[in-house]
Amino acid sequence: MNAEPRPNRTISVAAATAPAIHAIIPAGGAGTRLWPLSRKARPKFLLDLTGTGRSLLQGTVARLAPLAATTTVVTGVAHVAAVARQLPDLPEENLLAEPAPRDSMAAIGLAAALIAHRHGREAIVGSFAADHLVADAAAFQDAVRQAAALAEAGWLVTIGIQATGPSTAFGYIHAGEALDVPGAPDGRRVLDFAEKPDAATAARYLATGDYRWNAGMFVVRAGVLLDHLAANRPALAAGIEEIAVAWDTPARDAVMSRVWPGLEAIAIDHAIAEPVAAAGGVATVPGDMGWDDVGGFDTLAQLIPAVASGPAAGVGVLGEADVEAVGADGALVASSTGRKVVLLGVPGVVVVDTPDALLVTTPERAQDVKGVVDRLKAAGRDALL
Amino acid sequence: MNAEPRPNRTISVAAATAPAIHAIIPAGGAGTRLWPLSRKARPKFLLDLTGTGRSLLQGTVARLAPLAATTTVVTGVAHVAAVARQLPDLPEENLLAEPAPRDSMAAIGLAAALIAHRHGREAIVGSFAADHLVADAAAFQDAVRQAAALAEAGWLVTIGIQATGPSTAFGYIHAGEALDVPGAPDGRRVLDFAEKPDAATAARYLATGDYRWNAGMFVVRAGVLLDHLAANRPALAAGIEEIAVAWDTPARDAVMSRVWPGLEAIAIDHAIAEPVAAAGGVATVPGDMGWDDVGGFDTLAQLIPAVASGPAAGVGVLGEADVEAVGADGALVASSTGRKVVLLGVPGVVVVDTPDALLVTTPERAQDVKGVVDRLKAAGRDALL
Repeated sequence: MNAEPRPNRTISVAAATAPAIHAIIPAGGAGTRLWPLSRKARPKFLLDLTGTGRSLLQGTVARLAPLAATTTVVTGVAHVAAVARQLPDLPEENLLAEPAPRDSMAAIGLAAALIAHRHGREAIVGSFAADHLVADAAAFQDAVRQAAALAEAGWLVTIGIQATGPSTAFGYIHAGEALDVPGAPDGRRVLDFAEKPDAATAARYLATGDYRWNAGMFVVRAGVLLDHLAANRPALAAGIEEIAVAWDTPARDAVMSRVWPGLEAIAIDHAIAEPVAAAGGVATVPGDMGWDDVGGFDTLAQLIPAVASGPAAGVGVLGEADVEAVGADGALVASSTGRKVVLLGVPGVVVVDTPDALLVTTPERAQDVKGVVDRLKAAGRDALL
Repeated sequence: MNAEPRPNRTISVAAATAPAIHAIIPAGGAGTRLWPLSRKARPKFLLDLTGTGRSLLQGTVARLAPLAATTTVVTGVAHVAAVARQLPDLPEENLLAEPAPRDSMAAIGLAAALIAHRHGREAIVGSFAADHLVADAAAFQDAVRQAAALAEAGWLVTIGIQATGPSTAFGYIHAGEALDVPGAPDGRRVLDFAEKPDAATAARYLATGDYRWNAGMFVVRAGVLLDHLAANRPALAAGIEEIAVAWDTPARDAVMSRVWPGLEAIAIDHAIAEPVAAAGGVATVPGDMGWDDVGGFDTLAQLIPAVASGPAAGVGVLGEADVEAVGADGALVASSTGRKVVLLGVPGVVVVDTPDALLVTTPERAQDVKGVVDRLKAAGRDALL
């Protein structure tokens, strides 16, 4: 979990044989669909959603540790302290605070620019969301190593997730011809990116065998990324460079607070991945790694294994809940109150029990949770957000 | 709600034309099937289960006020303080504390004996459970007045509830020939009492037109009750008389603590109602008064009207819950925490939200709540009982 390998630490043979990457972890997004578990002040990436004792952010860092020469986390100022506590080994200069959200391009771009200044433009950066789950870390690491090999050869590389079904919740990567790059036997050119499709389109995509879910994982040389940015979004690139130059100097705060608020808020997909793909410069590596973005209580209910025996048998339990269940198979209880929770004759129910809010729903309504949060926001119930 | 009519208070004409009764209210029973709303320390009779702003006990006293010359409440020592606070006008000498539960005969018998000593053996007593609901107070009062007329003529009178269906949750009163007693046009002799029947038997009872639910409401002259008790349970009668003689003297506590623990624990039904009925001495008056014993969350869900509009529309809400419901028609939320409660796609669910315990169930499983409490008890979870 240490972001910087220490001299006295053994580095794995596999990691040593592939180009090391500089990991960038944009840690943003509240995880609205997991309300009231996730809150503005306690966003999804800070939560232990699998009962493993570590948060999604900590899991992301741990998963990258064997591959990463350095790790940089970009997060909102409101979460800097929590991130610092969760990642005690992360060097402070690698924890970047955004004064205001400016979407993923500014966040990843600034981190890449700093890495270019500190480690050279040839350094390979890899950007991975802080709030996703990966069940098969070895498969993930293999995909990242292939992506790094492609990145070394100059490609902007995205990892495409092997779809487990025709999901309408994700964008898709459309893969073209195989690429002949040493160390990346599965590499293919990206023809284009597709926005979240309807169900029929998604099924058609999967039938071709050429589409993967877009999990927003990018691996690329820092200099290549910055060049693409300069070519496609020159003002944004210039602003980022201005901040990066000042970052490791006393002028950091003054420049950051002057320049950052004016940066264009745009996703990395739109800013560079799509135009570069159209120009033939994006590659993809498939990953079959048990990936999940934990997008709502439906996926969470599937991720949490049911308790095998005892009073809570048949129910997935997240947190310290003291659960008794009768006739509640397949239910999910997520509790942060320590209360006694009794389920009687409510199979498949989802109960989220927090000190100031209680949600009772079903996996089928998981996506409607966002609407609840929207209404709370509209009603000015900020304390509950 | 004043137990003793004050000189300057107007007494209704109707009350003045029927014999006044001395109301006895045995306030016992935890209401286990309403856990975690009802607790050992906060039993059902102390709760406001209908959102009217008064507890079942307060409602019982208020319902009897137009009829009652005095009101006597018999409760466990643990609840004396709470009862005293809920009934500030109840004279202290009419609040009887049981050092240990000895079932209904001892409780009602002691109250009747005290009333006999204070007001004479001719005084009519009426015993009514503290934790039942009556929607139609006028119908209740009419039934009590007819019962009082029968009691004046020497009958042990029970009020029979017009059944709304073949319930298996109640005992039944089997009515025989009409009785010609002035002031009690609906009076009939009781042939016998039937224990809680199975569904087929209950349906057969109702088809005859001669059966009513037994709600445990008895009206009788104090002396008649004590004579029946002496004839059927002489030891119990003697013990009660010994306590009653000492009650309004300094010896009360010494005698109570010496005699009470040895009293036979038996229900009034078995002690006198059944044997006296067998001897032809019990009468009944029918009552169609919207009676409910609020025996579980199934009946409670029917009693609480759904909110008509706003975020909680379609849901019955008990307590200060801040409810938002989407797709949850017919649900019931009872909350004492003030938390935000959101129901999404869970029609008919029952959510009982208390500071240390949360129950999620359905009306169909209402009777299984008792099993939960039994298991908590067996596990030594006394704090949750």
